[in-house]
Amino acid sequence: MPTTTTLRSVRDLVSAQDVSGLVAQLRDKSPEWLVDLLEELPAEDAAVAFRVLPKPLATTVFDQLDTAVQADLVATLGHTEVGDVFASLDPDDQVELMDELPARVAKQLLRSLEGAELQAAMTVLGYPSGSVGRRMSPEYMHARPTESARTVLERATRLAHMTETIYTIPVILADRVLTGVVSLRELLAAQPDQPVQELMSTAVQARASEDAEDAARRCIDHGVLALPVVDGEDRLVGLLTIDDAARIVRTAADEDIARAGAHEPLRRRYLLTPIRDITRSRIVWLLVLAVSAILTVNVLELFEATLEQRVALALFIPLLTGIGGNTGSQAATTVTRALATNEVDARDAPRVAFKEVRTGLLLGAILGTLGLAVASPFYGLDIGSVIGLTLLLFCPIAATVGGVMPLIAKAARVDPAVFSTPFISTFCDASGLLIYFSVASAILGL
Amino acid sequence: MPTTTTLRSVRDLVSAQDVSGLVAQLRDKSPEWLVDLLEELPAEDAAVAFRVLPKPLATTVFDQLDTAVQADLVATLGHTEVGDVFASLDPDDQVELMDELPARVAKQLLRSLEGAELQAAMTVLGYPSGSVGRRMSPEYMHARPTESARTVLERATRLAHMTETIYTIPVILADRVLTGVVSLRELLAAQPDQPVQELMSTAVQARASEDAEDAARRCIDHGVLALPVVDGEDRLVGLLTIDDAARIVRTAADEDIARAGAHEPLRRRYLLTPIRDITRSRIVWLLVLAVSAILTVNVLELFEATLEQRVALALFIPLLTGIGGNTGSQAATTVTRALATNEVDARDAPRVAFKEVRTGLLLGAILGTLGLAVASPFYGLDIGSVIGLTLLLFCPIAATVGGVMPLIAKAARVDPAVFSTPFISTFCDASGLLIYFSVASAILGL
Repeated sequence: MPTTTTLRSVRDLVSAQDVSGLVAQLRDKSPEWLVDLLEELPAEDAAVAFRVLPKPLATTVFDQLDTAVQADLVATLGHTEVGDVFASLDPDDQVELMDELPARVAKQLLRSLEGAELQAAMTVLGYPSGSVGRRMSPEYMHARPTESARTVLERATRLAHMTETIYTIPVILADRVLTGVVSLRELLAAQPDQPVQELMSTAVQARASEDAEDAARRCIDHGVLALPVVDGEDRLVGLLTIDDAARIVRTAADEDIARAGAHEPLRRRYLLTPIRDITRSRIVWLLVLAVSAILTVNVLELFEATLEQRVALALFIPLLTGIGGNTGSQAATTVTRALATNEVDARDAPRVAFKEVRTGLLLGAILGTLGLAVASPFYGLDIGSVIGLTLLLFCPIAATVGGVMPLIAKAARVDPAVFSTPFISTFCDASGLLIYFSVASAILGL
Repeated sequence: MPTTTTLRSVRDLVSAQDVSGLVAQLRDKSPEWLVDLLEELPAEDAAVAFRVLPKPLATTVFDQLDTAVQADLVATLGHTEVGDVFASLDPDDQVELMDELPARVAKQLLRSLEGAELQAAMTVLGYPSGSVGRRMSPEYMHARPTESARTVLERATRLAHMTETIYTIPVILADRVLTGVVSLRELLAAQPDQPVQELMSTAVQARASEDAEDAARRCIDHGVLALPVVDGEDRLVGLLTIDDAARIVRTAADEDIARAGAHEPLRRRYLLTPIRDITRSRIVWLLVLAVSAILTVNVLELFEATLEQRVALALFIPLLTGIGGNTGSQAATTVTRALATNEVDARDAPRVAFKEVRTGLLLGAILGTLGLAVASPFYGLDIGSVIGLTLLLFCPIAATVGGVMPLIAKAARVDPAVFSTPFISTFCDASGLLIYFSVASAILGL
């Protein structure tokens, strides 16, 4: 990894426009080192450094860069300078990069492809964004059930450098219908004239239109090195390799984590992202929260008279809304995660609600008892009872709403993580305050 | 995947103790189907269903089960019944399962191993928990730099069924010092008598004592199928395969997502987890939050007189603490994630603080202006100014504390995700209320 000193010296050379110094500095560095360097540099400096790399090295390095950094390079250098490098990418990586670029630039890049390369990219582009068809590799080698192990091994040897993987080989019938997979390991261990059909096993597969994250999880759960992808008629159209699957799952996890913290994921490394972009990834959520929090102001206005009679009630507002909001968001993140991993779906709403009501009651009983015990000595038994009873009633409601809301979002085809956080925090705050002041009015006789 | 009807019928057969009915029901099912079934059933029912499976099938199925479900089976069936199945697992999977079991049961299981199996398991057990040494496979095939491609290919063919992978082959010198890796693909494409040293490339590697998540991320980032693991003297001790790396990263992401939602991850599928266990995964966090929220009660008590003079100030408490808390947790999840992916470390605290102060000021300026504009027509210019100014001052503080706190936690060797959430929400609530009432006292002259 480049040290801070190296980074500074590269940036100095860039700003001094000292090309020969830069060439000397970057000479003899490994592709991994250069990838780290380019990802650490601001976009403009990275473009200058990239430009001085010799062509074959530039191609290797570009291939390993984060898609967001690739997109920045294309945007800074222009499509003519990166056309050759782009053409040498695998078709799935080409399409992933194009998805990150403005449509105009993507189209210009596509023009640098021709023949088989263009056709492969167009196949992948034909599937909807977010589907596994869009992320698969359309270049693969295959075997027929009646071929001998020797024949297929010879083909694998010949194609070793031309396809994305030769370790998992899909077995297809006439019409390209998938019938199984055979691993290179099985082929090596077999008798040379053993037919493939005796060596192959059932394929863990995906349909091209299927959600890419679902398919990627299946690939990892089953620990297979590549997942054959088929069309609606079970014909083989591509392969999803496990390293691509792992990257898909990681990006999805980054998104889920960011949204559980109520913001959008950043496209580049945090320290390199400009303040403007960080603010943009957060402001929308804060605005939605702020607008919906106006509801809490309205609820409190209803009880302004009660508050005037007993100002001490105001002291516990942040405590109660804090506990309620957390109870709701705990349930929401659990269920959102269970949705993402396909453990539950919208039809499970009654089971989820039943589970959360009971969990919430248990949480409310524990917290309510503690609230009563801790508050009574200081603020009197009446205020203590109000707090205890509010927690007992509030926790099951917050947990249930928190648990069911992601399922409703899913059924309405909204991202559960995006929709749940602002809604649940507002709902829990408002309903908690309603319960609190209703209980207070009843017990304190206000 | 088993349907709900199948699940119910299996559970009926189990509770009727109808073994022959169960055998008939499960006959001819694929291992994948049985894995799904066992993971959907409650632990006791799963144990009964597992027991009726024929031995070779039971072994295949057990190998693919979630570690938590494996542990439940061992706990329910006892170590004698699963001893053989356990012995057939890979050493790294044996150790992962033992880590999930009570020490007593783990020791009993270890007794079912002997000879090379026992030695392999002991090697892995020798590394600290959480290190990559604990998750690697200690069984691997290797090559020497001077061997020919043909020799190594022949060895790979012979060992195809005995080692975890033959696709990435570490190349070692005398004394087992790692000098590179060669892929099976390169060996196949090479001239048969070409020496390995002409085919091998620099290894992306890990040290055995290194954090397993860091090593797993490196494996995925570089898209290598296996990462050689070396000891302090650069001697090869094992391999981390990409499917194990993907599982390590996924488990870590599950943990991060749960903690961003202020609870602990569940060990089993959500709908199968008893209410008691769900409550346990949440209550600790709620208690910590509740206890620290007592601080907000104390802060408000300081301003009880101010509140009595102007009860309307209470209306905005949930809105302000809500926005502040979210600003803080947005910064905290961003930085926690950047820590997890090694983009920042504790020494970057000043850079992070500088970035967050500016982001917070920008957020505060936007939200404060809006607050002033929206509140003034309804509650008067004085209250509007109090709200606007509070947001302007509060957001940079919340963002900075939220951003720096995970770094402090990391430096103090506490899990940033565990430590940050309760601390930040309490700190933001308390400091926000202090700012709010100080600003109010000044502007309203109370």
